[in-house]
Amino acid sequence: MSIITLTTDFGTKDHFVGALKGKLISGYKEATIIDISHDIDLFNTLEASYCISAAYSNFPKGSIHIIGVDSERTKDTQHIAMQWDDHYFICADNGILSTLTQKKVAQKIVAINIHDRLNTDATDMDVFVAVACHIARGGLLNVVGKEISELKVVNELNAQITENKTLIKGHVVYIDHFGNCVTNISKKMFSDVALGRKYEITFHNKKINAIKKSYSDFKTNDRFSLKDFEGERLALFNENGFLEIAIYKSNPKTVGAASTLLGLKFRDVVTIKFKE
Amino acid sequence: MSIITLTTDFGTKDHFVGALKGKLISGYKEATIIDISHDIDLFNTLEASYCISAAYSNFPKGSIHIIGVDSERTKDTQHIAMQWDDHYFICADNGILSTLTQKKVAQKIVAINIHDRLNTDATDMDVFVAVACHIARGGLLNVVGKEISELKVVNELNAQITENKTLIKGHVVYIDHFGNCVTNISKKMFSDVALGRKYEITFHNKKINAIKKSYSDFKTNDRFSLKDFEGERLALFNENGFLEIAIYKSNPKTVGAASTLLGLKFRDVVTIKFKE
Amino acid sequence: MSIITLTTDFGTKDHFVGALKGKLISGYKEATIIDISHDIDLFNTLEASYCISAAYSNFPKGSIHIIGVDSERTKDTQHIAMQWDDHYFICADNGILSTLTQKKVAQKIVAINIHDRLNTDATDMDVFVAVACHIARGGLLNVVGKEISELKVVNELNAQITENKTLIKGHVVYIDHFGNCVTNISKKMFSDVALGRKYEITFHNKKINAIKKSYSDFKTNDRFSLKDFEGERLALFNENGFLEIAIYKSNPKTVGAASTLLGLKFRDVVTIKFKE
Repeated sequence: MSIITLTTDFGTKDHFVGALKGKLISGYKEATIIDISHDIDLFNTLEASYCISAAYSNFPKGSIHIIGVDSERTKDTQHIAMQWDDHYFICADNGILSTLTQKKVAQKIVAINIHDRLNTDATDMDVFVAVACHIARGGLLNVVGKEISELKVVNELNAQITENKTLIKGHVVYIDHFGNCVTNISKKMFSDVALGRKYEITFHNKKINAIKKSYSDFKTNDRFSLKDFEGERLALFNENGFLEIAIYKSNPKTVGAASTLLGLKFRDVVTIKFKE
Repeated sequence: MSIITLTTDFGTKDHFVGALKGKLISGYKEATIIDISHDIDLFNTLEASYCISAAYSNFPKGSIHIIGVDSERTKDTQHIAMQWDDHYFICADNGILSTLTQKKVAQKIVAINIHDRLNTDATDMDVFVAVACHIARGGLLNVVGKEISELKVVNELNAQITENKTLIKGHVVYIDHFGNCVTNISKKMFSDVALGRKYEITFHNKKINAIKKSYSDFKTNDRFSLKDFEGERLALFNENGFLEIAIYKSNPKTVGAASTLLGLKFRDVVTIKFKE
Repeated sequence: MSIITLTTDFGTKDHFVGALKGKLISGYKEATIIDISHDIDLFNTLEASYCISAAYSNFPKGSIHIIGVDSERTKDTQHIAMQWDDHYFICADNGILSTLTQKKVAQKIVAINIHDRLNTDATDMDVFVAVACHIARGGLLNVVGKEISELKVVNELNAQITENKTLIKGHVVYIDHFGNCVTNISKKMFSDVALGRKYEITFHNKKINAIKKSYSDFKTNDRFSLKDFEGERLALFNENGFLEIAIYKSNPKTVGAASTLLGLKFRDVVTIKFKE
């Protein structure tokens, strides 16, 4: 059994995802295909990067992850396959995987070069499917590509620390289904800098003075139940270890959420200022 | 082969559902994972309850149903696993399962108590996954929880019958993809009270005098084809046995539907008045 | 292993799709069930037809395709099962499959007649599930239906060629997730008529003078990179061989797409005029 996951911006209305699964199952009938997302914002490689980074480690070692976002092969962008942390990733070299390789060196990266071996009308997905099925059958990366040493450097949003270590400046890099705003400030970066100091989280003209352990980490007593805290803003490190600005029991469609009530948008700045 | 179904309010854009499936397949690789819904209205336990009640019986006996809606474990809400009608259900004790236990006594309910055995950063879903995989491997509920006799009583919407049996008062508990408005008035309740009497279904200031056998149960003849009835309001018992107010060939996005044309909203009252 | 694909207008919020999968897995536990789409526009048989036509051939021969769009059985519409191009299709005889049979003669078509053998409260989907599981187990079509020679003729949109072969008149038959507008003008029809002549593609008062080989088929040089062409309109034959009007790097929700920027709607006319 080989697990093949899919992360795309194809949407779920069209036949695209079904066709992709049909190709995979035709190429390797024992494949267990699992959707991660098909609703990545169109061509948004930053969202795709966040999504696959957050999801991959939940799958068994050896899983194959196809990322179909901005995957057209052009003069400037080649198709790549990468073995990293004992998982396989297949996508275009458009920055999606650089979040991963910044954290840990890849075991192997190849620039896929099988295009000439496929039909002349083969699509980008046909290429990815051929590579995925090859890996699923136990094939080597070198057979489907030429080894390269590194990925293309893409200017991503990165959280930064001031030299005097009084400030971390990050950005909203993902807004989830609950309207929670995920930043690129990691728990590790925070711990390394904080060293037990007090701090203030700021975005627009709003402040939060504490990071909670869970969404419902409010002090309840005889007079105040959890219900009384619904709608309160909070900050916490989410399950992927990134600082998140949230609203307790949010709902973007009804009562509102961090994205709507606090006016936070994709790429907005969130800072943590440490007290002397 | 064990079937594990998923009913959540996680949405399908984020990595949450993919991560959950990855955890399940990592924990029990033979799992057949089937989505019921990931678009339950956020934190809406009533919708989740309707959805799982309507879906579960279509799966083979022994299936395991994870319900990830309002599932955070708090001081007031414990995690539970229940064997009921030869199916297994895993969720928070927040009222979702009380629709089921009101109809039929549970075979076994346990308050999950494995939290201390998991990593300190284990999420609510990690708990549900561990329990689901345990059951899938044929494990006993008593191993993962302490038996309890009943679920928390939650004030749900229930249809009611007047003492003189001239009126049934129900509510809209679910609005589906076609804009059809499902009430909590069951076919059984109706039959028990109606006893062949004439009746009038009322909501807002609108009336319907008959319950159809199917959406297209209109009298057609040489002059009127089914096409002429498109847009007509109707009432019928849906495949789950609940009274539904619908529009023939509805479309909430274009021509309208019961929810839009008749102004019916979640929790609105629908009554059936019987003639003497 | 039998593959069963699903193409419906059921949406993914309700329990309908989960229930359908539960029934299939209950009826044939080895089924590999793959979603093609559940977001076909409600009752839109033309969209369903485009979607299944574009998807089916990606699956292995012998796959079974259930299409649950406008599938209620009425006096005028029977349920059918068809073997065509070594694939099986199950739906209502409402025009969905006529795109296929116009291209190639069916191997066998039967009008399903098992309704009396099922429970009296069996739904349309129960019928489709029973037939799909029968085929998956290797059963013959004649056992579940009475052979018929042809499908009901439905007035579909068809592209047309003027008698003097100077003009092809087609229509937008599908708008995809990227806002790309797919027409019913096939590459084959174009090639047969064009014979190397110059041409002009026209819709509303807009023109395109060339058909590109891919979305990024722009002439780049030292001064203009692909990024400079984002937002440009283009025409190309898509992977299904149909003329498509697109915008390079479109996004209906942000920068716009062919459907929004060029004002193209479902059923709008697109013509190709050939120069003498």
